[in-house]
Amino acid sequence: MNFADRVNSVVVERRSQIVVGLDPDPAALLPAAAAEARGDSPAQLAATAVLHHCELLIEALAPVCAGVKFQLACFERLSAPGWAALEGAVAAARRAGLIALADAKRGDVPHTAAAYAQALLGHTPTPWGNVGGLGADAVTANPLLGRDSLEPIVSAARAGGAGVFVLVRTSNPGAAEIQDRSDAGPPLHDRLAELVDDLGAEGIGACGLADVGAVVGVTEPQLIAGLREKMPRAILLLPGVGAQGGDVSALAPVFSAGPAAGLVTAARSIVDPALESGDVVDARNAAQSLREQTWSVAGS
Amino acid sequence: MNFADRVNSVVVERRSQIVVGLDPDPAALLPAAAAEARGDSPAQLAATAVLHHCELLIEALAPVCAGVKFQLACFERLSAPGWAALEGAVAAARRAGLIALADAKRGDVPHTAAAYAQALLGHTPTPWGNVGGLGADAVTANPLLGRDSLEPIVSAARAGGAGVFVLVRTSNPGAAEIQDRSDAGPPLHDRLAELVDDLGAEGIGACGLADVGAVVGVTEPQLIAGLREKMPRAILLLPGVGAQGGDVSALAPVFSAGPAAGLVTAARSIVDPALESGDVVDARNAAQSLREQTWSVAGS
Repeated sequence: MNFADRVNSVVVERRSQIVVGLDPDPAALLPAAAAEARGDSPAQLAATAVLHHCELLIEALAPVCAGVKFQLACFERLSAPGWAALEGAVAAARRAGLIALADAKRGDVPHTAAAYAQALLGHTPTPWGNVGGLGADAVTANPLLGRDSLEPIVSAARAGGAGVFVLVRTSNPGAAEIQDRSDAGPPLHDRLAELVDDLGAEGIGACGLADVGAVVGVTEPQLIAGLREKMPRAILLLPGVGAQGGDVSALAPVFSAGPAAGLVTAARSIVDPALESGDVVDARNAAQSLREQTWSVAGS
Repeated sequence: MNFADRVNSVVVERRSQIVVGLDPDPAALLPAAAAEARGDSPAQLAATAVLHHCELLIEALAPVCAGVKFQLACFERLSAPGWAALEGAVAAARRAGLIALADAKRGDVPHTAAAYAQALLGHTPTPWGNVGGLGADAVTANPLLGRDSLEPIVSAARAGGAGVFVLVRTSNPGAAEIQDRSDAGPPLHDRLAELVDDLGAEGIGACGLADVGAVVGVTEPQLIAGLREKMPRAILLLPGVGAQGGDVSALAPVFSAGPAAGLVTAARSIVDPALESGDVVDARNAAQSLREQTWSVAGS
């Protein structure tokens, strides 16, 4: 099944465009998760607690969210047990019916991009049998190396009904320096948007959206309508609300292409209330509030 | 000790600017390494064989090389055992006195960039004790997200005497589309080169080179002199010779800043001869030939 159609059915069924970002810090976990740490080394203890933390949040948030975005850095820093925890957390998200998004931001020469596609979306043949990859439903990808660096990831994703979100305009302040760079010509983010539109052209689902989407930060709302125009069929993954100060009400142009044409991702503003109280219900309430605001802006 | 000074002393002592790229494919390992596969799962079997493959090549190549560049994708695709193999291979390179370079090409918002720095260069504090990171001597980083995405990686590297190589002009054909993009103004790679020069300004060693370098492909030799001019103190990591067709003789301008001002990285052209014969001596011979060519072009 086409990735965009999968996203569309999850969004419509759950009436939610919310993707919760999980970037667990082992020093700030739910107390109930920290108590479940098991193992012989700091890495094992921390990784088992991190996995439990993710599982508790996924369970609490599944009814109000469309997906989960895992920040790979936060698992890689826990060494091999961290990678195992990431696999467990992706599996938990999928079991809960959520879109599992690997926020990897990988970008490399074609030969290496194919290896990342095996790691995140596919599998790796070896003389000892196939090694399964992460099994993500979608990945984020960095386009600095150009079209040939994205193609192996797009084609692996497409073959498995998964999706790719290409960085077009990120939400950090430093993004302006490179991505909005224009000199006399159009800014780089416009060129990246054209590339996204082009890469998705052969992956359009029945819902009219494509399996190649784009990351577009909500922090520069004046850019959104123009980028939507250049990528009329892309699902936009929208970071920058909440802790980073972006405003959901600026998102109306995103949803001209339908209710699944935008996924709002937030991490700290959803998870922190639960960390403060120790009760995952507070994360669900924060996600529910963002869900209602977004659903209303989407006019669905 | 400043990273550039460390590189300088390795290069001068070994009379080599060669960094061998290791991007192991479990389906194409040295037969002696494949025979050492151990474990209960395809991932464990493949990862132990991959580690042994790396160890054999590192042992054979240490006398003629300055460093080893590990392609992270090739380890991540072997799941948690792959990450453990990567740690073992980095440790083997360091034991052999080589600069261990994690070719990660990470680039993310500042909060996440700091987590990648913990994973690759530092450690992660947890309630169960510190979790050590990969312990690389240097990492590659993607600058698409701008200065604030690079700063956490540069400052973690600098604090530990490690280095960062920022992608300025990669060696794949698709790089032209984005990195050489200029419209009416200067191309993006020039802006990235200025950013590299600036980030390195506070990390200049006694040898006159900086701890922030740049990846510059050898595949477009006409760009090299101009980029060197914009980054007079950067160590350039130079992919694209050998299998990708780049020519070492074009590298003279690189070495205007000294013998350690350029590191030539090659993977397949060094490793493939050993895979064909089954004898690591053939990898050493290929590296030795590239070492002599480069040393002579560097005029050292």
